[in-house]
Formats: sequence, C-alpha cells, structure tokens
Amino acid sequence: MPLKIRVILVEPLYQGNVGSVARAMKNLGYSDLVLVDPCKLDGEACALASHARDLLENARIVDSIQDAIEGVNLVVGTTGMTCSKGDEHIRMPVHTSRQLKDKLNGCSGTIAILFGREDNGFTNDELKQCDMLVTIPTSEEYPIMNLSHAVTIVLYELSDVVPGDIPLGEHFDLELLYEHLAEILNDISYPEHKKNKTHLMFKRIFGRAMLTPREIQTLRGVLTRTQRTIR
Amino acid sequence: MPLKIRVILVEPLYQGNVGSVARAMKNLGYSDLVLVDPCKLDGEACALASHARDLLENARIVDSIQDAIEGVNLVVGTTGMTCSKGDEHIRMPVHTSRQLKDKLNGCSGTIAILFGREDNGFTNDELKQCDMLVTIPTSEEYPIMNLSHAVTIVLYELSDVVPGDIPLGEHFDLELLYEHLAEILNDISYPEHKKNKTHLMFKRIFGRAMLTPREIQTLRGVLTRTQRTIR
Repeated sequence: MPLKIRVILVEPLYQGNVGSVARAMKNLGYSDLVLVDPCKLDGEACALASHARDLLENARIVDSIQDAIEGVNLVVGTTGMTCSKGDEHIRMPVHTSRQLKDKLNGCSGTIAILFGREDNGFTNDELKQCDMLVTIPTSEEYPIMNLSHAVTIVLYELSDVVPGDIPLGEHFDLELLYEHLAEILNDISYPEHKKNKTHLMFKRIFGRAMLTPREIQTLRGVLTRTQRTIR
Repeated sequence: MPLKIRVILVEPLYQGNVGSVARAMKNLGYSDLVLVDPCKLDGEACALASHARDLLENARIVDSIQDAIEGVNLVVGTTGMTCSKGDEHIRMPVHTSRQLKDKLNGCSGTIAILFGREDNGFTNDELKQCDMLVTIPTSEEYPIMNLSHAVTIVLYELSDVVPGDIPLGEHFDLELLYEHLAEILNDISYPEHKKNKTHLMFKRIFGRAMLTPREIQTLRGVLTRTQRTIR
C-alpha cells in the first residue's frame, strides 16, 4: 500500500482559493481533493484552477468532515495558531510541516490533510477529530497565510516523503481505541472535571504515535483485560 | 554578514500576483521585494497583499534587472523549463529549490532570486545574467506554477537555511571575472562559433561554484598572468 495524500478543505469561503489549491495540487502531483460544504464554485474557481480544471471538477463534495475522512489512516489538521499553555491539550503539541514529513517517511496509508476556513480556521470540535496537528513556521509579525499558499507548502514538503512498509492503523480504529480509553476513565472513576482534557491528551499521544493496526489491536486487548479485571 | 534574500519579480503581468507575493513574503519573514517594470499596482494588489501592504508599498521599482541586482552576491534565476540537451549551457544544469538551500547553508551575503513573467518567464539574455538556475520539482502533467506559489515554495525552502561565515563574492566581481574569461578566449583565438557557448559554460560553472571574494581575486590573478604570458 503506497502513501496517499488527500487534501480536505473545510468550508472554504472564496472560490478563487479553491481554484488555486486545485492548480497547486496538480503542479505538485496530487489529485485527491475533497471539499466540505464549500462556497459556490463557478467561473473564478475554474479560472484560477487554470489547467487543473479537471481536478476541480473531480473534487468530491461532502457535508461533513466525517464523510471526508472516510477510509483514511491519519487525520492531520493544519493550524496557524499554536497554544503556549501546556495544559491545553487541544492544540498541543503542534508539529511543523517538516516534522510531519519526517514522521511519514517509511509509512504507507492514506493521509487526510485538513485546511480550515480562511477566516476562522477550525472549531475546537473539528480540531478534536484530528489525530495530529501541523503548523507552518511563519513570521510572528504576520502569521496568517493565504489558504492556497499553506496547501502549497505542505504538499511541497510532503512531495519528497519516502514511503515504506510501515502500515498505519485506520483512523476509524483509532476512534474505537479513543472510545475504549474514555470507558476506562469511567471505570476508574477518574475525576469528572479532568476527564475531557485527559481524553484529549490520549488522542494527541496516540494520534502522533502513528500506530500500526497491530498496535491498536494489542492496546485494545490490554484495555479489555483491564476492564474485565476492574469489573 | 548574515544571509539576506531579495525577491525580484521581472515584469509581473498581474497585480494580484504581486500582492500575493508580498503577503507570502511577510508570512515567511522576508521583506526585500524589488519589481522590474511591473504592471499597474492599485486596489487588487493591495487587497491580496492584505496585511503585507507595507511590504508592497516599500517595494523598490526599477527599470532593469541590472538595477535590481545591484550590490548582491548571487543572482539566482527560477525557471520552470529545464533543458535536456547537455550542450545547451544556458539552462544547464538547473538545481532544485532544495539544492539551492543546501548550497546556501554556511554562506553569508545577499542572494537575489529572480522570478520571470507569468506567461513567458525569462528571455535568454535575462537567463544569462543569472549565476545559477533553480527550478521547483513539479508534475510533468502540469508543471507551470502560479507565480506566488513558486515564490512561496522557494522562500519556505530557504527559511531554514543555516547561514555561516563563508562570504560570497559580489555578483559584480563575478561579472568582471566573466569578462576576463571572454578576453582569454579572444587571446587564444578560440573558434568563433564556440565562443558564446563556452563563455556561458564558464558562467554556469563559476556561478554555481559560489566563489568567495578571495577566490575571484586569485582566479583573476591567474588570468592576468596568463594574458601577460600570451601577449
């Protein structure tokens, strides 16, 4: 299984950006574009897609991130904002685009890379659906990049990943692992006010650990045995 | 002396692209923008520059590449077209954006990076003014990138160059070296029909060799001595 990259734009607001993204994708040799509830796409999107109009026309349009990430192995959210508070697990830790490439070297599977709205990025609930967060190192003076430039940089960085034989577990199975971990927190009467943060920490740790299917299976086996012992 | 990057757009045709370039430059922490005989720049350029309007307004506008590259150490031309004919020195060899970064590691000086017109790139005479040619690896299916995306990729790549103490000679002194080499070709009655190509080959070799001021001086000393001996 090779390494495949899927670009997912979440509710893009400006059709020119969608067209520009399609062009940059084709320039860099990518073709899997999914749009979650996008703006209207007509003349301007086509004009900016230029010779990548086919890619734009073949883009899959869906209603939800859940639909967009179906069947993928890893869900990577891109964010311009990083959080300095160490206890705020939702945005911590954030990897750089280069670190993402280094992590993907040697792996196989389908990687979904999500880009948020031009104005407001992602909601916290959307960020929680990501296995890993990635940011592009930018100037502090003006950190907000144009959407198509951000896509261009991430895809350029990933274009020399050297894929390998390490299979990545499916995001769906990771989700089952996360649910299992939430059950354990209940089983051990973990303090209610800490539950959400600790659960999110689990997601961040196992998300960036790039688990194989076998590892997910073994972890769930440990959790099941733990639950049996507790109960 | 640190490593400084100057972005030079040669006769850009669309003001939206110029604005987008300004934004990407500021995002990535660069500020030295020079425009050679650009299109009209008004509302659209400002809109796309967004919060990099200051950078756009401070861009130096000049009439010629000669003026744009004044005082720089290395002139790098970016090109989407590579030539496979080994005897066509004008476009050979072309380095990738990553190779450019690797070459600049450890160096100091001002590097001018030239980007050509959106439709026709550079003329051959303009390419000859470059010390080194660089291309972005793109898909064969659709290799022509949008101008601002090309600038974004090159600057992103260069943003983690590790500068050092190796000083680069000035482009102006390189030009004097090239003229000196042309004299030598005359002095040795080099076949007229081969002169231009061989001279261009000299430029390509010494251009990509990243000569220090001392090396240029020493080479010119050798050439002067050679001329004296011949004459």
